[in-house]
Amino acid sequence: MTYIRQLRTSKRILMGPGPSDVHHRVLNAMATPMIGHLDPEFIEVMDDIKEMARESFLTKNELTFVVSGPGSAGMETCLVNLLEQGDEAVICQHGVFGGRMKEIAERCGAKVIHVEAPWGEPIDPEDVRKALQDCRPKIVAIVHAETSTGVLQPLEDISRMAHDAGALFVVDAVTSFCGTELRVDEWDIDAIYTGTQKCLSAPPGLSPVSFSPKAVEAINNRKVPVQSWFLDLTLVQDYWKGAKRAYHHTAPVSALFALREAFRIVLEEGLKHRWQRHWENHILLKEGLEELGFEFLVSPAFRLPMLNAVKIPVRLDEAEIRGRLLSEYNIEIGGGLGVLAGKVWRIGLMGESSTPNHVHLLLSALKEIMATTK
Amino acid sequence: MTYIRQLRTSKRILMGPGPSDVHHRVLNAMATPMIGHLDPEFIEVMDDIKEMARESFLTKNELTFVVSGPGSAGMETCLVNLLEQGDEAVICQHGVFGGRMKEIAERCGAKVIHVEAPWGEPIDPEDVRKALQDCRPKIVAIVHAETSTGVLQPLEDISRMAHDAGALFVVDAVTSFCGTELRVDEWDIDAIYTGTQKCLSAPPGLSPVSFSPKAVEAINNRKVPVQSWFLDLTLVQDYWKGAKRAYHHTAPVSALFALREAFRIVLEEGLKHRWQRHWENHILLKEGLEELGFEFLVSPAFRLPMLNAVKIPVRLDEAEIRGRLLSEYNIEIGGGLGVLAGKVWRIGLMGESSTPNHVHLLLSALKEIMATTK
Repeated sequence: MTYIRQLRTSKRILMGPGPSDVHHRVLNAMATPMIGHLDPEFIEVMDDIKEMARESFLTKNELTFVVSGPGSAGMETCLVNLLEQGDEAVICQHGVFGGRMKEIAERCGAKVIHVEAPWGEPIDPEDVRKALQDCRPKIVAIVHAETSTGVLQPLEDISRMAHDAGALFVVDAVTSFCGTELRVDEWDIDAIYTGTQKCLSAPPGLSPVSFSPKAVEAINNRKVPVQSWFLDLTLVQDYWKGAKRAYHHTAPVSALFALREAFRIVLEEGLKHRWQRHWENHILLKEGLEELGFEFLVSPAFRLPMLNAVKIPVRLDEAEIRGRLLSEYNIEIGGGLGVLAGKVWRIGLMGESSTPNHVHLLLSALKEIMATTK
Repeated sequence: MTYIRQLRTSKRILMGPGPSDVHHRVLNAMATPMIGHLDPEFIEVMDDIKEMARESFLTKNELTFVVSGPGSAGMETCLVNLLEQGDEAVICQHGVFGGRMKEIAERCGAKVIHVEAPWGEPIDPEDVRKALQDCRPKIVAIVHAETSTGVLQPLEDISRMAHDAGALFVVDAVTSFCGTELRVDEWDIDAIYTGTQKCLSAPPGLSPVSFSPKAVEAINNRKVPVQSWFLDLTLVQDYWKGAKRAYHHTAPVSALFALREAFRIVLEEGLKHRWQRHWENHILLKEGLEELGFEFLVSPAFRLPMLNAVKIPVRLDEAEIRGRLLSEYNIEIGGGLGVLAGKVWRIGLMGESSTPNHVHLLLSALKEIMATTK
């Protein structure tokens, strides 16, 4: 047998596109001794999570729960349950994650109407309006916070257009949830998924989701079963709701303990204060980065507070600097993704990682490194 | 905002069908501060896990890794990657989980040839042989340890038949893995999935899997993409292998820390010793239960050591006794599933829950309760 030594990791400062730093209260909750997934005490944990997820999504949607997989599984849950072979789907893409939605929709056998914006810009509602003139889509899907570009997508106009066209409005809120304004009911969002490892600051691996009554109706009226048994909401919903929980799969007990505590921290702080904190630390970082000569990829009106995409001057070896930040300072920031690989950094200020100390640490480390590499 | 109190759970003794008790070393490893999922230190963690998973599966299969979802997601991974529309699939069913495989295979558009055995008995290889006379299946799939019935299914004969028929051999090892003899290479298993919350004694939520080179070839030669983007191995494998990890989704970092420690504990004990321990505690429990007048559902030759299904005498209110075990003694055992609901108990002795103390506690609690309910 090969000898595998005891786990020994460095104390990282997480300022990439996620995961973000996790509060010790969340780590401790996760290490709670195991209980059964059908234990009455665990049913209560699931109920607490549903209630806090609703409060955090600002929704009354009954079908609000947590998919037992990461954000991509949440994305797939929304799309495979709503789309059937031959359905039309307007998929907006202004970065990597819109592209992923398109690919999943195509694998559902949907006919995708693709609305694009250049990476670093939001989708123009006018383009959605045009696309909707020539089709009768089942859904219009869009990313609220494009983690690959740092763009905050305004949603209200597009939501209205989607509904005027008789479509359901599907939103990716993986990076925006609990870090910037997001109002599921007020903005009339029919299906939404998020992740746990961004502004919620829980470990990665779960995906809170919420579905409007209209979306639930669409799912219950499907002509053929969902292609995925694991993600089929007609089955999963009976595991998460009602007095009698119908066994479907075994819920990730420890990860849900952690998520419960992360939600408690979010609601103790209050959503508005949390949005405000993310904004203030973004401004602090922005001022420091501009002093160092960096420019943002995204124009001010559409910048995400929790994911700052800055362009790399050609004279800098971005991979080397990122490597030194990690190895010498224990600071993780993100490189570019897709067409932006090598061209931008993605600096996260998410959840527990959105503090002035994080900003100061990164700026002083960057200053030191750049002084020695110029 | 609703006030949600701090988490407060009871110290349960887990003797149901999973999750099992988790060692404090595993809980502590899970509570390690977060690091990034593309951090070089985390890549090492993934490598350690792949290596220990191979040792525990007794395989050299390169494509051995961990699906970022529970056992059911592992099941779906195996089936949706191997099966395409119109493929024939021999699915053996002798309990709930064989039925789940059948349902997933049907959702893949496969033509299922169904081989059945009564619940509580293993599949008769002769029935598989007959089924194989009239079809040219892509796979033969079977459950090694049927958690719903307590049956241990001998695999070697059926593996040989599957290969003679040109099929791939797919095995559900959710409950058997690390608790009873299982030899992936020697038994010529082409695709196998398991769970973490049974004899591995890690928290639920992940599914170690392994694929033979022949299975990998079948996946790479598919005519159409896998219906699930999230579970598509042509994408996922690039995240788990090679020097450059291609981002696919965000791995559940903390759960993998926990799994790494659980594997370390398995290999410190040694597979054979672990199988032996599970057997010895099963015998101890069996003797005690028989003294109390209980009969096993399964005949001695096919009993699982880690999941003991015993029949409930009609005079006993099984739900009441299970409820009292939990509320008065903090002991969880499992009720029956599917057609066995209300008719059997499923008593787990899995991983950290397979100790003489667990057996003694349960027997003495049962004795007390039955003395007051007779």
